[in-house]
Amino acid sequence: FSFNDLAKSWPGLIYLFLVLVRHIQDPASQRLTWNKPPKSVLIIKKIRDASLLQPFKELCIFLTQQKNMIVYVERKIIEDPAIAIESFVSLKKKICTFREDYDDISNCVDFIICLGGDGTLLYASSLFQESVPPVMAFHLGSLGFLTPFKFDTYQSQVTQVIEGNAAVILRSRLEVKVMKKNREKESVEEISLVTNGDKTMHYQVLNEVVVDRGPSSYLSNVDLFLDGHLITTVQGDGVIVSTPTGSTAYAVAAGASMIHPNVPAIMITPICPHSLSFRPIVVPAGVELKITLSHDARNMAWVSLDGRKRQEIAYGDSITITTSCFPVPSICFRDPVNDWFESLAQCLHWNVRKKQSHLSSEEEEF
Amino acid sequence: FSFNDLAKSWPGLIYLFLVLVRHIQDPASQRLTWNKPPKSVLIIKKIRDASLLQPFKELCIFLTQQKNMIVYVERKIIEDPAIAIESFVSLKKKICTFREDYDDISNCVDFIICLGGDGTLLYASSLFQESVPPVMAFHLGSLGFLTPFKFDTYQSQVTQVIEGNAAVILRSRLEVKVMKKNREKESVEEISLVTNGDKTMHYQVLNEVVVDRGPSSYLSNVDLFLDGHLITTVQGDGVIVSTPTGSTAYAVAAGASMIHPNVPAIMITPICPHSLSFRPIVVPAGVELKITLSHDARNMAWVSLDGRKRQEIAYGDSITITTSCFPVPSICFRDPVNDWFESLAQCLHWNVRKKQSHLSSEEEEF
Amino acid sequence: FSFNDLAKSWPGLIYLFLVLVRHIQDPASQRLTWNKPPKSVLIIKKIRDASLLQPFKELCIFLTQQKNMIVYVERKIIEDPAIAIESFVSLKKKICTFREDYDDISNCVDFIICLGGDGTLLYASSLFQESVPPVMAFHLGSLGFLTPFKFDTYQSQVTQVIEGNAAVILRSRLEVKVMKKNREKESVEEISLVTNGDKTMHYQVLNEVVVDRGPSSYLSNVDLFLDGHLITTVQGDGVIVSTPTGSTAYAVAAGASMIHPNVPAIMITPICPHSLSFRPIVVPAGVELKITLSHDARNMAWVSLDGRKRQEIAYGDSITITTSCFPVPSICFRDPVNDWFESLAQCLHWNVRKKQSHLSSEEEEF
Amino acid sequence: FSFNDLAKSWPGLIYLFLVLVRHIQDPASQRLTWNKPPKSVLIIKKIRDASLLQPFKELCIFLTQQKNMIVYVERKIIEDPAIAIESFVSLKKKICTFREDYDDISNCVDFIICLGGDGTLLYASSLFQESVPPVMAFHLGSLGFLTPFKFDTYQSQVTQVIEGNAAVILRSRLEVKVMKKNREKESVEEISLVTNGDKTMHYQVLNEVVVDRGPSSYLSNVDLFLDGHLITTVQGDGVIVSTPTGSTAYAVAAGASMIHPNVPAIMITPICPHSLSFRPIVVPAGVELKITLSHDARNMAWVSLDGRKRQEIAYGDSITITTSCFPVPSICFRDPVNDWFESLAQCLHWNVRKKQSHLSSEEEEF
Repeated sequence: FSFNDLAKSWPGLIYLFLVLVRHIQDPASQRLTWNKPPKSVLIIKKIRDASLLQPFKELCIFLTQQKNMIVYVERKIIEDPAIAIESFVSLKKKICTFREDYDDISNCVDFIICLGGDGTLLYASSLFQESVPPVMAFHLGSLGFLTPFKFDTYQSQVTQVIEGNAAVILRSRLEVKVMKKNREKESVEEISLVTNGDKTMHYQVLNEVVVDRGPSSYLSNVDLFLDGHLITTVQGDGVIVSTPTGSTAYAVAAGASMIHPNVPAIMITPICPHSLSFRPIVVPAGVELKITLSHDARNMAWVSLDGRKRQEIAYGDSITITTSCFPVPSICFRDPVNDWFESLAQCLHWNVRKKQSHLSSEEEEF
Repeated sequence: FSFNDLAKSWPGLIYLFLVLVRHIQDPASQRLTWNKPPKSVLIIKKIRDASLLQPFKELCIFLTQQKNMIVYVERKIIEDPAIAIESFVSLKKKICTFREDYDDISNCVDFIICLGGDGTLLYASSLFQESVPPVMAFHLGSLGFLTPFKFDTYQSQVTQVIEGNAAVILRSRLEVKVMKKNREKESVEEISLVTNGDKTMHYQVLNEVVVDRGPSSYLSNVDLFLDGHLITTVQGDGVIVSTPTGSTAYAVAAGASMIHPNVPAIMITPICPHSLSFRPIVVPAGVELKITLSHDARNMAWVSLDGRKRQEIAYGDSITITTSCFPVPSICFRDPVNDWFESLAQCLHWNVRKKQSHLSSEEEEF
Repeated sequence: FSFNDLAKSWPGLIYLFLVLVRHIQDPASQRLTWNKPPKSVLIIKKIRDASLLQPFKELCIFLTQQKNMIVYVERKIIEDPAIAIESFVSLKKKICTFREDYDDISNCVDFIICLGGDGTLLYASSLFQESVPPVMAFHLGSLGFLTPFKFDTYQSQVTQVIEGNAAVILRSRLEVKVMKKNREKESVEEISLVTNGDKTMHYQVLNEVVVDRGPSSYLSNVDLFLDGHLITTVQGDGVIVSTPTGSTAYAVAAGASMIHPNVPAIMITPICPHSLSFRPIVVPAGVELKITLSHDARNMAWVSLDGRKRQEIAYGDSITITTSCFPVPSICFRDPVNDWFESLAQCLHWNVRKKQSHLSSEEEEF
Repeated sequence: FSFNDLAKSWPGLIYLFLVLVRHIQDPASQRLTWNKPPKSVLIIKKIRDASLLQPFKELCIFLTQQKNMIVYVERKIIEDPAIAIESFVSLKKKICTFREDYDDISNCVDFIICLGGDGTLLYASSLFQESVPPVMAFHLGSLGFLTPFKFDTYQSQVTQVIEGNAAVILRSRLEVKVMKKNREKESVEEISLVTNGDKTMHYQVLNEVVVDRGPSSYLSNVDLFLDGHLITTVQGDGVIVSTPTGSTAYAVAAGASMIHPNVPAIMITPICPHSLSFRPIVVPAGVELKITLSHDARNMAWVSLDGRKRQEIAYGDSITITTSCFPVPSICFRDPVNDWFESLAQCLHWNVRKKQSHLSSEEEEF
């Protein structure tokens, strides 16, 4: 076994290689560990969905009264007239409220619970632009990729999670910076997509960055750079830069292969490309991607981040994308492997088929 | 910045996440480092290709006479009558020969040079079932994914590499074990695909494991397990389990997205699946895959490893696949990013297109 | 309305164009019309499937005793020991038997009934190398593309068909000729795939002609000609030339779009092509296709016709394919449109999906 | 040969089948025939492209002076200041001008010549909402699917065409009707996309009808009916209903197979569908398709016709599509087969590939 000799030659590399290979070997080992028991919980609820009111109230009561936790809820949810029934009035006093874009709760929350579809988790991601507390997501309706828990047995399940009895998957995010050319000053400045005090911050994306032709009927025409090198020009309806988590969202509709969220990678998928040979590609997490309008583009492009923050991109502007240091710790229903394949089957009907015994008949078998 | 707080909660996980994300951040940092200067070099040459004889001889002379290296060559190459010209006779004495499957040279070789197509590198991989010395591959004809160097300036390029002046990419391999049911003994035994002394060894695959229907005209029908769980049944012409390196070989023809070799992942691609929804998937390096014939399969399946070792798979047999600890250190012409995109363009004509200005005309533009 | 003027200019063309466009306008108009009531019926049954014995016997009794028809059955079916029970003995005498490849029944049969999977209809097609009587196919197990009828109410359904109360679809076939180079005589001769007396006949294919690499591990490399022009070279696992009926069989697994059987077209689909841009194409019925081994092919290719008649193709051999003048009149359960979409849903789960309301959430909607 | 017997049974059907199959058998037979020599010619020129001015003037002079034809040109082209040079002044008097949407020239023109890209032919199609004179299209820049002629030898080529010495292909169009629900009157009325006097006319589409989500970030959700039956619901970015001519335009970018324009068919292609199994389908020319917003759609859809006439589609509105009786007779450079394959190669790089000899190496071949 000459591994040691080899290791001597490129010790750093081989070491990292083995870390990479071993890292995900046992998904069961990716478990939640609380340093101290969680005291405060943020509840995120899909709005305007009457069917969620009862579960929401039950959950608030359970967390405040039985678990003695401080519950945070966005003010507009608690001010919903539909929720203002008598039984909830006393509870309301105990709930802390905040307003999006005004109040910063990122340091007050130990734990997040989502009620609703995958959108609630994308919203949770948008609220925490730096580190994110562990998120437990209930789907209420049908299973989602990001919402693995059923609400039926929420009490025992929440209890298990609070006791640290759960698997967790770190969903990587993309850190996005949009630079705008200021034609007057002849300078290029970062757009303030999100601020923390006076500080302009890069935006954290959980699913994908989409650059498309917007309402124009011309093909979009954008240049794609990787670590400073122009790697290709995208001509078509647009391009999707997604996390592995996002590979099963818009990217899969545009033809991408599906990537397990534990793979440290970034997926680049063209949308209806003009070129027959423009197959999607997967590049390593950690590279820096940059997208600009091509020199010969006939119209503007539009960018959106997890479906929000839609911006027009003109010649001279750029979008820079890297893997973020702030993943979303997402609590698993079973474990990262089983949850994912369960979602593939339920949400995408992956490889559902009628059993058939042959391509075409053989003489002796017809 | 509350990263520290977060890090306290899941210190191990977050640390690993950052290792993963940062690992490939700067491809330029993946550089070859010799512990001591390489003394011995193995030359692998595509056989029966007359155009390679002259480059081969030149290279032998250069390495032995100018670089004072010990050159290893397979015996059948040196015994090729076409090579037995006068000028080569004296050189021949200085060359060490070996026979495949008889002589083990895995501990004698510091460095490998390939002359020919991608097949030479697959062959090099097959010779080194444990750790592999760095490989420098010349393509002679047209650029390959695994053979980035042109032969024109081989002297300066080989010199640079020997001096440690080169980027390197660690191409992950798959470790494959084939178990056969022994119907007499009612036991299951590992097939000896390759041996080291008396020891049966798992086989190392650089591109892919293919399970297909062989000459049968019935669909193959195999079960696919991941870490012990049945994740799906493949009904179709077969299935490809490939490394990122192999994603641009057979897998891409079967419809896979292309994965950069630095991504620690395994790709699973069905071949002409019966199901419309059987999109390829990418799972993390480090998982254990197992393939068996399905309970209701109507015929045998066949397995092949990098196009070799073809075996029939009956009911009760199994193929087990994991990421190997023995990657192939492959020397880059420029660096892991540029080499790959250059190959995508040259070998696969990726996103080659005629520029077109619009989808269909606008009234003011016709 | 200047259509008349136009029509004067290219009267023939416009007339044909309108015939084409109108032809399929009303699938309900494609109805079965018997010149005289059918007297004789051929029953084709999947062999070695015990579950079919009882339906087969019932059907024989019904047709002979209630409908006074002459029933033809292949001898090997009637000689199956499993069928030789007492109640069937008397019936047996009334059944006409024939042997495949010995007895020509093509002029004795007015009507065909199939019991089993899609393979029974492919077999029926192979028995009638010129014109084919109307075929009514029962699926017994699960719905097939070619077997739309359920057996439950067979009596009323068969009665309706005999009374001419049914829609019919003409499934086009391909006429295939395989030419072999005779190296001794230095001539090229047609292979006798099927004979009628002394006459070598072209073979009629209902689903597809497949040319593939057979057991070889090298890519197949074949040239494709259309009306005498070389249109492309196929490098990959092979190529499928299919009817619209065959577009939902092997071709769909290889990535083809699905073509309704009423479209007069031929589909050409590569199997795992080496080229990213080798999208399937659809050409008009009536063209002549020819496939030969490429000049620089490294190995033989193999051809098979509806999964049968497997032949090796060497350099100098050729396969010629045109649309046949002998379609298969296939009786519809409802009509050509509804039957097809029903099969797409049942057999291929076409566009089965979980309803989802958005790509990714909007702020006001999470 | 029992064809006669068969023919007796379903004489109409079999006759039509043979017409269909034979129709396109010999593309060389689809030739242009002038009833009387063409006297008037409409020239369509891409505007705002300075490189076209000189060819345009040359062509005008050639047609008026050497061919004694009456030349029609749109007024805005002749009023372009860039064209107002001295040498053209005298010529200008001889040219008939018209204004789009004001002057109806559909009965004055025997022949159309296009200068520019594929858009000029789409524009020509939009000007002739009933029968269309033969169109000869020059590409000037690079070859297009609809513009096969090079301008270099325009004199001899135009002469050949005028003398009836040319092949022609009838490109089918789609006839589209958009119905809007009038919420006040509680009625449904056809939108007047184009008028002829007081008559509202259906719109003729040469490439495709696109229904998409417009600027909305929600999936579009539309129901698709064929001959009155709901066949599926499209959830995704949208759906394309295209002619075979349009199959190589937007549809191919969305994943469609490519259909030769001589195939009498309509292609239905989803745009980024939410369902993995939503493969494109090809249905016979002559069916009637209808698209409406689904009952549970969360937002409006948008329709566009050959990239124009963009309309919002609300619940209760509908789009009805059938094959038009007014094809576009498009003059071929060589013939319908060669022109198409030449365009596939030039415009789409169809099956461009690097020759490779094997999937992976064999031991004896490395």
